[in-house]
Amino acid sequence: MPALTAAQIAGICGGVLEGDSSRVISGANTLEEAGPSDLAFIANRKAIEKASSSRAGCLIVPEEFSREGTLIRVSEPRAAFARALAAIYEKPRPAGSIHPTATIAGSAQIGANCVIGAGCHIGERVVIGDGSTLYANVAIYDDVRIGARAILHSGCVIGADGFGFVLSGDHYEKFPQVGTVEIGDDAEIGANSCIDRGALGATRIGDGTKIDNLVHVAHNCSIGKHVVIAAQTGFSGSVTVGDYAVIGGQVGVGEKARIDAKAVVGGQAGILVSQHVHAGEPVWGTPARPLKQHLRNLAELAKFGKLRNEVREIKKKMESGN
Amino acid sequence: MPALTAAQIAGICGGVLEGDSSRVISGANTLEEAGPSDLAFIANRKAIEKASSSRAGCLIVPEEFSREGTLIRVSEPRAAFARALAAIYEKPRPAGSIHPTATIAGSAQIGANCVIGAGCHIGERVVIGDGSTLYANVAIYDDVRIGARAILHSGCVIGADGFGFVLSGDHYEKFPQVGTVEIGDDAEIGANSCIDRGALGATRIGDGTKIDNLVHVAHNCSIGKHVVIAAQTGFSGSVTVGDYAVIGGQVGVGEKARIDAKAVVGGQAGILVSQHVHAGEPVWGTPARPLKQHLRNLAELAKFGKLRNEVREIKKKMESGN
Amino acid sequence: MPALTAAQIAGICGGVLEGDSSRVISGANTLEEAGPSDLAFIANRKAIEKASSSRAGCLIVPEEFSREGTLIRVSEPRAAFARALAAIYEKPRPAGSIHPTATIAGSAQIGANCVIGAGCHIGERVVIGDGSTLYANVAIYDDVRIGARAILHSGCVIGADGFGFVLSGDHYEKFPQVGTVEIGDDAEIGANSCIDRGALGATRIGDGTKIDNLVHVAHNCSIGKHVVIAAQTGFSGSVTVGDYAVIGGQVGVGEKARIDAKAVVGGQAGILVSQHVHAGEPVWGTPARPLKQHLRNLAELAKFGKLRNEVREIKKKMESGN
Repeated sequence: MPALTAAQIAGICGGVLEGDSSRVISGANTLEEAGPSDLAFIANRKAIEKASSSRAGCLIVPEEFSREGTLIRVSEPRAAFARALAAIYEKPRPAGSIHPTATIAGSAQIGANCVIGAGCHIGERVVIGDGSTLYANVAIYDDVRIGARAILHSGCVIGADGFGFVLSGDHYEKFPQVGTVEIGDDAEIGANSCIDRGALGATRIGDGTKIDNLVHVAHNCSIGKHVVIAAQTGFSGSVTVGDYAVIGGQVGVGEKARIDAKAVVGGQAGILVSQHVHAGEPVWGTPARPLKQHLRNLAELAKFGKLRNEVREIKKKMESGN
Repeated sequence: MPALTAAQIAGICGGVLEGDSSRVISGANTLEEAGPSDLAFIANRKAIEKASSSRAGCLIVPEEFSREGTLIRVSEPRAAFARALAAIYEKPRPAGSIHPTATIAGSAQIGANCVIGAGCHIGERVVIGDGSTLYANVAIYDDVRIGARAILHSGCVIGADGFGFVLSGDHYEKFPQVGTVEIGDDAEIGANSCIDRGALGATRIGDGTKIDNLVHVAHNCSIGKHVVIAAQTGFSGSVTVGDYAVIGGQVGVGEKARIDAKAVVGGQAGILVSQHVHAGEPVWGTPARPLKQHLRNLAELAKFGKLRNEVREIKKKMESGN
Repeated sequence: MPALTAAQIAGICGGVLEGDSSRVISGANTLEEAGPSDLAFIANRKAIEKASSSRAGCLIVPEEFSREGTLIRVSEPRAAFARALAAIYEKPRPAGSIHPTATIAGSAQIGANCVIGAGCHIGERVVIGDGSTLYANVAIYDDVRIGARAILHSGCVIGADGFGFVLSGDHYEKFPQVGTVEIGDDAEIGANSCIDRGALGATRIGDGTKIDNLVHVAHNCSIGKHVVIAAQTGFSGSVTVGDYAVIGGQVGVGEKARIDAKAVVGGQAGILVSQHVHAGEPVWGTPARPLKQHLRNLAELAKFGKLRNEVREIKKKMESGN
């Protein structure tokens, strides 16, 4: 971990320094836990109060913020802090290395400068772009293509058979899953997530898309670019998701549903078979509906008892009145 | 990939050929994407329109369908297509092979013609039937029994301890999990799914049952034959599921629940502890109820605002009327 | 499997023996399936009826129970049975052993008497306490600390990067995840569960906490001691859970939510971002509410149709009456 001066950090962040430019920063932490040699940041107005009591040696702050001490003013504090963090905790990424316990088919093509962890298995004709990282125990079936600079976390499984069966008389026969998986550049796939191969054609994950742990993507889904998918969400077959969509955790998406670019889906929502989710307002609930409508329904349910009492009252009055 | 003639494919499907019996077919695809050397199929009436513009070299169609070109008439197009697909994309399944990095206990019995992938671990006294396939990184604990022709996808874990603890004073003690797991013939278990061993006795998965990715089956469940279970569903302890039941994705099933043979459970449904799910009508929602009832409840919730306005109106009238 | 006499088992359980003290017991089973050489137990009054027809050679029973035959009276039958079971099925735990296919970084410290299974990967500077067990194919990233006597089931992933990204212009940049994971003594982590490292600081799992299969714990969660978490539950970032809380399966917990000590959360519940769950009454539903309130809401929904009919009736009367 290299120690940096506040001035160096300001340079890395593209921010304007105020205070002690030679202050040495060797770590980073939250406002509450940062000490005199640590960097911290203020994400928003809510955090400004906390900042007053912070012991952090240097603060990354929004442009309009003012306070005694060493500050770096930037327009996007969170992004700037992330960049500084990467510099402060920089570990020399191991140069291209393939762990001796990884098993890689002879016909697979591994790009330059890839790191392939212990116990990974890479099938026939797999192609992996330059600079990608596979942590321990990743399994990649035959014919999968993965872009450059992708990160695959431990235990994820790419290219297993899609879940397709045909009831034939008294038993199910396997619908052959002869397609593949294509994962874009700069994608990140979480631990123990599963991306199934297409039945025919490919299951696609776009460039820059980030998938959390324990996510399931079924055969022939087409997930766009720069999509964010939180943990334990599952997509049934042939779902399409547009670029920059944001999908919460534990969401379930039915077959052939369409989620538009930039749409936002709340945690645990259930999207029905062939449902079309638009951008603009987040959706929530099962079946997923615009957030306001769902909240109104929830609120109304709570008022049901009151309404029932009112009706009872009316009936009484009518009976006594007549 | 062998190229086949339309006549050969008709033979494989058990269908009636019409048109150019010597047409060479070397691939298969969807109606939209198939080209002149590809097979495609029409699953149902909805697809018939698409068929008119398909460039597919040969179509598998329902018996009543008619159109110019090379057709194969069958009673079950989807099943016939699956069979043709298997023939067209036939890869010579590797003869029985055990990857050198697999670790197999000395007391385990591996049937003839099994394929055991890289990094698989097979515990003591495990028995695996003939012709089964374990993809890379499958873990099988001691004493598990797996039938013939089973397929276990990467990362699935069979026979881990059931989740049983007894609060004893100020801490939990482990309830020993001394049972096992029995998986039938022709079963398929998805990537990263977990089937726990019984506490006493066995957790059972019947012949021909198909389980998708990331499914959890707790100790002492008894899942019947030819059951289909979609991704991310979880079964608590001692659940029973009858033959030919169909369970959607992300379903949660409480302890000791009973799901009858041929019952259908919708995605994200929640089945309560000891609840009994009957066949006949699908169930949905949490707690799971017959689909019509659940849909009615959802619809009524949406009408609540209208009802409240009506009651307000009535009150006004009564007040002004008196 | 050692055979024990009823007297020996009574000693192990700390119970009072009645009947044939020299009866030989070589197994254990449920009341229904136990035979003359098996131990069984009665957990509660409901089970007493079944006991009358049980063929078990010896029964562990609540103190007030009476019946012919060989009995062991104890105050906590389930805990006593668990202890007896451990003795009857005792397998000599392998002395400290590291499977030759495990890959362990040179800087990792593995305690005495640990069992490290096949295909496990243990990263740099990891510390594991004495007597811990890692089943096959566990992956532990750099810098994780695990206590003594912990059990990690196959496929679990400890210390993968937390899911943190910053939208920077047209793409997401990774928020560096430079924290770690600390797991306490006597913790058990289920198969294919994922505990992510902190962004800054640690993700913590307390002593004695038991986590089922396929659970997701995001960065910077702080899970207390002796917490029980059922399968497929997911915690977003920075959630805190107090000691002795009990969390059902498939629960989703939003960022920064607080679950108090001894709180109980029902299966599939959804806890909102920053929601505070108190002990006392279990919570259920999404958003999670006290159980009684949630049940009342569900019940009222079912009465909606009746209420609507009443209002219709009132309107009719008013129209005809006026």
